[in-house]
Amino acid sequence: MSATKEEIVAFMAVEFPSAKFTIEEVGDNGAILAHDIGKDELRPGGTVSGPVLMSIADVALYVATLGKIGIVPLTVTTSLNINFLRKPSAEARIIAECSLIKVGRTLIVGEVSIYSEGSRDLVAHVVGTYAVPPNR
Amino acid sequence: MSATKEEIVAFMAVEFPSAKFTIEEVGDNGAILAHDIGKDELRPGGTVSGPVLMSIADVALYVATLGKIGIVPLTVTTSLNINFLRKPSAEARIIAECSLIKVGRTLIVGEVSIYSEGSRDLVAHVVGTYAVPPNR
Amino acid sequence: MSATKEEIVAFMAVEFPSAKFTIEEVGDNGAILAHDIGKDELRPGGTVSGPVLMSIADVALYVATLGKIGIVPLTVTTSLNINFLRKPSAEARIIAECSLIKVGRTLIVGEVSIYSEGSRDLVAHVVGTYAVPPNR
Amino acid sequence: MSATKEEIVAFMAVEFPSAKFTIEEVGDNGAILAHDIGKDELRPGGTVSGPVLMSIADVALYVATLGKIGIVPLTVTTSLNINFLRKPSAEARIIAECSLIKVGRTLIVGEVSIYSEGSRDLVAHVVGTYAVPPNR
Repeated sequence: MSATKEEIVAFMAVEFPSAKFTIEEVGDNGAILAHDIGKDELRPGGTVSGPVLMSIADVALYVATLGKIGIVPLTVTTSLNINFLRKPSAEARIIAECSLIKVGRTLIVGEVSIYSEGSRDLVAHVVGTYAVPPNR
Repeated sequence: MSATKEEIVAFMAVEFPSAKFTIEEVGDNGAILAHDIGKDELRPGGTVSGPVLMSIADVALYVATLGKIGIVPLTVTTSLNINFLRKPSAEARIIAECSLIKVGRTLIVGEVSIYSEGSRDLVAHVVGTYAVPPNR
Repeated sequence: MSATKEEIVAFMAVEFPSAKFTIEEVGDNGAILAHDIGKDELRPGGTVSGPVLMSIADVALYVATLGKIGIVPLTVTTSLNINFLRKPSAEARIIAECSLIKVGRTLIVGEVSIYSEGSRDLVAHVVGTYAVPPNR
Repeated sequence: MSATKEEIVAFMAVEFPSAKFTIEEVGDNGAILAHDIGKDELRPGGTVSGPVLMSIADVALYVATLGKIGIVPLTVTTSLNINFLRKPSAEARIIAECSLIKVGRTLIVGEVSIYSEGSRDLVAHVVGTYAVPPNR
């Protein structure tokens, strides 16, 4: 029932045609994404904006979910909890590493660790839940 | 110490020069914002994207905080928890109503109710925390 | 499909035989509970312990859910997010007011405002989710 | 500035005289606790009650914080977010493993993985925040 990285890349290119993220890895229970940082992602003071971090976390959860259950329409985020921990670099890509911690019949829960590329200090930490159709 | 709606509108125009939200009201313990919905905010299927809802909630918390404590630099989001409740309309503005539920010395906590304009059914509900400098 | 306050009181007396809470009201979209405060609920310094507040919030969500959908076995908490806002009184009952903000086919989401009886200052604020069997 | 396991065990014995948890390990950035499960911790159907899981998570965060910054009075939980993932065993101790993911000047953030002893399947996952006095 799972989807390969190539299938997900093709699917996401249609769903998010102007997205600035790249899918680096899709595994059995997780995924790693990267997001370019440019003028549009920065706030005055050189901080990556919070919504960019929330957005890449949400997409990482989505990609990890598709990797697990396959390309399932009607899969939607039901909750997302983010803690902002450190100021991200303005000059490095944002890396989002998602691990699924529960794959249930109707709910999938994952956590996402967000870094600036080249550092292992957490920039933000996310826990999110996706609802999936029960009879997929 | 508080800031008026006009002061905040002027400040936000500098901080978010290309933003699509408007500040409708700033009160003593809250704020109401609206966000236009166009092609950029929609996902296939006609749903407003989750990151748009997270983003407007974050800004509503920020505006309500500024309205309470004044234009204070170094005020940053520390956490945000969102529950997605119903599919928003693709044809109505998104309305975000923020109420501050705690204004402490170092932490401000608020909740945000998100609607499609013209409906009172909650589209999403957010609780967020801002850290403010202790000796402002 | 809903349950009355009397039905829920009888059901809860079996599920939580030694509980110290009382069910004050059950409405169409919410419930109000109270919790006695004694030596067992206090921490050194005279603060009501955090777990007591989390516990009464969880029960308030459960009672409000039963009030809405009836006495449904297999209804379980899936997530709970609490913000501790002010030190509660050591001498007043804790009041928990729950409002359901979404009643879906498989998920029910509610928020709970927690006070010390006699004050309208929020002691804590909770958002929680219950999963309910789809074909109840 | 940190506290040893022995100092924390002595301190907690005073703060929680009737507690049923034991402190198994205190490290530089985390702690492991165990909680006995008996009749008082179970709900009808043989499930460990949600409040027991929330309580042990809260204590694990507290112990890890004390291990990092020393025995600091006025350290309080400000938020706790729990996801319930699987039904815990009624016959095994509950194990809570806490890792601190940010140690800031005023806020400490940690995550807690909760298991039934003898299994590596997550029973619940928690992210919590403690506020610490700035000039400790």
